[in-house]
Amino acid sequence: MSKKISVGILGATGYTGVELVRMIVSHPHAEIGFISSQTYCGKRLSDVFPEMMRICDLELISVEGAQSKRTDVVFSCLPHAASAPLCKAFLDKGVRVVDLSADFRLNNEKEYAVWYKETHPCPELLAEAVYGLCEHNSTAIGAARLVANPGCYPTSILLPLLPLVKAPALDVHGIIADSKSGVSGAGRSLKLTSLFCEASENFSPYSIGHSHRHTPEIEQELSKAASKNIQITFSPHLLPISRGMLSTIYFQANASAAKCIEFLRKAYSNAPFVRVRESDDLPNIKNVANTNYCDMTILDTGIVGAPLIAVCAIDNVLKGASGQAVQNMNIMFGFDQINGILR
Amino acid sequence: MSKKISVGILGATGYTGVELVRMIVSHPHAEIGFISSQTYCGKRLSDVFPEMMRICDLELISVEGAQSKRTDVVFSCLPHAASAPLCKAFLDKGVRVVDLSADFRLNNEKEYAVWYKETHPCPELLAEAVYGLCEHNSTAIGAARLVANPGCYPTSILLPLLPLVKAPALDVHGIIADSKSGVSGAGRSLKLTSLFCEASENFSPYSIGHSHRHTPEIEQELSKAASKNIQITFSPHLLPISRGMLSTIYFQANASAAKCIEFLRKAYSNAPFVRVRESDDLPNIKNVANTNYCDMTILDTGIVGAPLIAVCAIDNVLKGASGQAVQNMNIMFGFDQINGILR
Amino acid sequence: MSKKISVGILGATGYTGVELVRMIVSHPHAEIGFISSQTYCGKRLSDVFPEMMRICDLELISVEGAQSKRTDVVFSCLPHAASAPLCKAFLDKGVRVVDLSADFRLNNEKEYAVWYKETHPCPELLAEAVYGLCEHNSTAIGAARLVANPGCYPTSILLPLLPLVKAPALDVHGIIADSKSGVSGAGRSLKLTSLFCEASENFSPYSIGHSHRHTPEIEQELSKAASKNIQITFSPHLLPISRGMLSTIYFQANASAAKCIEFLRKAYSNAPFVRVRESDDLPNIKNVANTNYCDMTILDTGIVGAPLIAVCAIDNVLKGASGQAVQNMNIMFGFDQINGILR
Amino acid sequence: MSKKISVGILGATGYTGVELVRMIVSHPHAEIGFISSQTYCGKRLSDVFPEMMRICDLELISVEGAQSKRTDVVFSCLPHAASAPLCKAFLDKGVRVVDLSADFRLNNEKEYAVWYKETHPCPELLAEAVYGLCEHNSTAIGAARLVANPGCYPTSILLPLLPLVKAPALDVHGIIADSKSGVSGAGRSLKLTSLFCEASENFSPYSIGHSHRHTPEIEQELSKAASKNIQITFSPHLLPISRGMLSTIYFQANASAAKCIEFLRKAYSNAPFVRVRESDDLPNIKNVANTNYCDMTILDTGIVGAPLIAVCAIDNVLKGASGQAVQNMNIMFGFDQINGILR
Repeated sequence: MSKKISVGILGATGYTGVELVRMIVSHPHAEIGFISSQTYCGKRLSDVFPEMMRICDLELISVEGAQSKRTDVVFSCLPHAASAPLCKAFLDKGVRVVDLSADFRLNNEKEYAVWYKETHPCPELLAEAVYGLCEHNSTAIGAARLVANPGCYPTSILLPLLPLVKAPALDVHGIIADSKSGVSGAGRSLKLTSLFCEASENFSPYSIGHSHRHTPEIEQELSKAASKNIQITFSPHLLPISRGMLSTIYFQANASAAKCIEFLRKAYSNAPFVRVRESDDLPNIKNVANTNYCDMTILDTGIVGAPLIAVCAIDNVLKGASGQAVQNMNIMFGFDQINGILR
Repeated sequence: MSKKISVGILGATGYTGVELVRMIVSHPHAEIGFISSQTYCGKRLSDVFPEMMRICDLELISVEGAQSKRTDVVFSCLPHAASAPLCKAFLDKGVRVVDLSADFRLNNEKEYAVWYKETHPCPELLAEAVYGLCEHNSTAIGAARLVANPGCYPTSILLPLLPLVKAPALDVHGIIADSKSGVSGAGRSLKLTSLFCEASENFSPYSIGHSHRHTPEIEQELSKAASKNIQITFSPHLLPISRGMLSTIYFQANASAAKCIEFLRKAYSNAPFVRVRESDDLPNIKNVANTNYCDMTILDTGIVGAPLIAVCAIDNVLKGASGQAVQNMNIMFGFDQINGILR
Repeated sequence: MSKKISVGILGATGYTGVELVRMIVSHPHAEIGFISSQTYCGKRLSDVFPEMMRICDLELISVEGAQSKRTDVVFSCLPHAASAPLCKAFLDKGVRVVDLSADFRLNNEKEYAVWYKETHPCPELLAEAVYGLCEHNSTAIGAARLVANPGCYPTSILLPLLPLVKAPALDVHGIIADSKSGVSGAGRSLKLTSLFCEASENFSPYSIGHSHRHTPEIEQELSKAASKNIQITFSPHLLPISRGMLSTIYFQANASAAKCIEFLRKAYSNAPFVRVRESDDLPNIKNVANTNYCDMTILDTGIVGAPLIAVCAIDNVLKGASGQAVQNMNIMFGFDQINGILR
Repeated sequence: MSKKISVGILGATGYTGVELVRMIVSHPHAEIGFISSQTYCGKRLSDVFPEMMRICDLELISVEGAQSKRTDVVFSCLPHAASAPLCKAFLDKGVRVVDLSADFRLNNEKEYAVWYKETHPCPELLAEAVYGLCEHNSTAIGAARLVANPGCYPTSILLPLLPLVKAPALDVHGIIADSKSGVSGAGRSLKLTSLFCEASENFSPYSIGHSHRHTPEIEQELSKAASKNIQITFSPHLLPISRGMLSTIYFQANASAAKCIEFLRKAYSNAPFVRVRESDDLPNIKNVANTNYCDMTILDTGIVGAPLIAVCAIDNVLKGASGQAVQNMNIMFGFDQINGILR
């Protein structure tokens, strides 16, 4: 077997970081170059996550230490605003980067400032960053130095909508995305709403309407694909589960559900991780949890004037974050897309 | 204290039946006359539900035995189609009835046949049955012999929408209800989808579009209130929780969210169980679980043409079933609405 | 109705504090005098806990403000070491106190120092503090100025064992308590192990052997009752549920399970909240959750030399904390034990 | 790569069957020969389990049809009593068998009759059946035609105890196993106690003392290893999780915890799936869920006369069933033990 590429992971002790480690250690063409953590620097990953004993007992190093490591690619799982400068530092050394933060998802630094309440740290990189929605941008991803890994909600909304929005004959409008996410979407940080006693036996809308930070990312990609300005109504909700996300999407279109499913099947005929289902085979979270699959279907109600309904389910930590990140890496380095992801 | 009324409960060993028992045994003006169960006939309720030890140790009797009991009111928790003939039998003996099944919710027996795949057993009673949505029909409920207790989904959708639909100046249309229910909504029967291993860490849409049996009930009540035909898009989903329901409702209206909230506050100013909240104080399930409260608010997105969003949360077993049933009984007998319900 | 007593609650915004508020507002002979919180001082309780809207919309005051309020009794839900000095301040003003912290549970200040790593703030009060295990100390509780409300684990272990240990003819030894608690036992503070993603789909032993702080409390009460020194093996585990606790207790005794059950039935014949069950009617958590009941039974294995097994279930927040606290208050003021607790 | 062996799975539509399929389809040296199901015969596995779409879309055949298939090995996931005759039929055709039912675990047909209330269907095979606890019987397993795959509880109790019981210098006695299992242990059948609304927010002991069917299996293997008769106290409990099992085991031994850990480390130095941890690094379920790992440690309390405590965690469906079954197959066919199991 040829030499493996070396992979660095910045911020390896969050939920996305650990999943990246799991995938890289079983990847046929990649291996861990370094794993970093500011909080747990000096400890072994398996000290922080006892579940990783024997799977990865490497020591966590500091971000500073990481910069002297020679790797082929770096995944950044750092928080937004903190991530961009480090991505830049690695790019400057010739290392390719997949950024799991939000820093390079929005093309426009003003939009970034509005939604993230920060001046963008590296606006000069925005133009070259490639939006890493694997099934739609694979050519650009393959050539990219810097890939902006999509947000979880955007992934679950764009994958079913983009083929429709791109179809020249279709006019898609009036989009409402009612999305539901597991608690891991909030990360491993200590928040009241992430406590077991607050989240279990509960279900809560939050940032609904037009206020969640994933809104401009979804609108940007839909608008680019449609070549017109698209605004959506986006309602996130918190589910009492650890992992998984399901979006129920309502929209007006001049086509039947059957026709729309046809567009989806065509768009994803070669996509190893997208499973387009029949209208009566509704996606659910259990079917995709702990996998990189994206399950989707579209149905109609038979009522004149009523919207079509798309249902799309993913694992927010895998297809919505780390799985898609490794898929991006596979595309960037010419590996089979499923390497390290599908067993 | 005056003499207590005597209450019979048909089908007392489902989730709704047990909750009725709990409320009646602590009710200041009511007491259990009989509890029936075909499956567990001859056993004590506390043998079937050990949690009821000392709370209610009464023996479960058969439906036949029940008919010889003299009670003032009967709650029927029997399945649809089985419920109506028994309700009739008690009505014929001069007993007032609150039917928790779907048998008397639809005014039109043809609609019933379409949605429930059964010929209605007692169509002659449909005209007099009162739809028991307490906050809207209290006068009729007070005078009724037969009250059709509303479905859980309809309760969570009608309570926020009816005041708007009834407002003469408002034109409400394009209603989409994205609803999420706990597993107890499926009852205590043995279904694959109700198994812990299937429902936990999962979230599933089902009967979405225009196919769930609560659809015609919602449309009927909205249409009556609006004096025009209203059709909705209704998407139920199954939550991995035991109890609770939340509906996120999208609709077009010629008014601001603030104005709509004003209509709600006015409509519910005297309703002890409806809590209208500010737009930024979003309802969630935990806040209403194990209570008879209905929490609601309305918000807008600031986007031109975008829908308004109503959020409404209830406990599906209480406000969505047994709690509302006791509230109906209280209205029927002139008791304070909160008796036996609010402690 | 006679005048209600006035109740103060220090630290009202934890899980135990909110439950106290719920019980006091529905208590026939008591009412809230004040509720305090350092973190949320100045806010209304229903702003912090939206579920409390209309149930208790009182403003939270500071501990300093609380001291100028005239109340008949104060519940302290403050952390250990912080609680004792405030209890003393209220006692000095003639207010009776139920302390839910650990500060007055251990009779010996040296033991306190060993287990809680703090010098006891008010050792002079230890002698008069009454251990508030309602079913065993009701006479002393009735006369007490200061009641130390028992820990949750001790309640679930002492209630089934004390009647046996006290029985003159019985020799109980070799006690092993394998206990399991819901996450609310850790309070509402932000801990990694209390996060939904860490606790759900998990089950973890912690502080097992002889290291949990409730160990000396259990041993002290057993030893006093037995008039000899008793040491136990105590293994707490964390359950993926919000509320409830179950202890499976193994012990050697010169009696059959049937005989032991007889002792329990006799000891608790007048105890409204203890339900002694048959050997084949095993307690579980669901049967007692959200109630003040303590369910228990004892069984044997038929194997020579094998231990007897006691199983005991309580709601850790109610019978294990706030419910027992109100029960203590009822005894202190001569009310019916069930007032405010059983509806 | 050499030719793959062909694998048949009887009863492929339970939780264990589906996991077997997942492992076999990713196994480097094995492939599915057939999958059978009486209930779903004629359907594709992915029709019954939509999550299996693209992973295994094979058609489920009948048991009768299965018997004409040529495979190298068959896994039986059939219920006890039904399994043995089919195992025999395949053995008679020269196919090797791993039986996941209880039919060949007990050496003595009279014991079988006592505990399983059935006359053993094939007592003539009992003598040659090998108890498939991989880490202890690998030589016999390698040569076996018929492997009895251990029960989940026995796996979690025997793995930490067998090395101690086998140690010539150690006298282990007074064993109490307090075990906790996820709901999947009850299979995918429709039982009241497996319903979400019954199991969630609950925790229940069942068959405690000396009555669970896994008791004789544990005692048989301990007694064989110790060359003396050993009886245990075994208390199973039902956890509100889908997958995972943890046993807290109390026992008397003439050795320190440190010494016992040494025995474990020695016994499992080459075992790829056993992770012996330090006394203060307590196993929990999350660390082993969805893996074939068995995590264990031993600790003591420092109290004279008190028992030692072993804690052992496994995934009941993997190490406790299907994972161990594939591990057995790997040993039988000379593959690396981790093939198809560890990614």
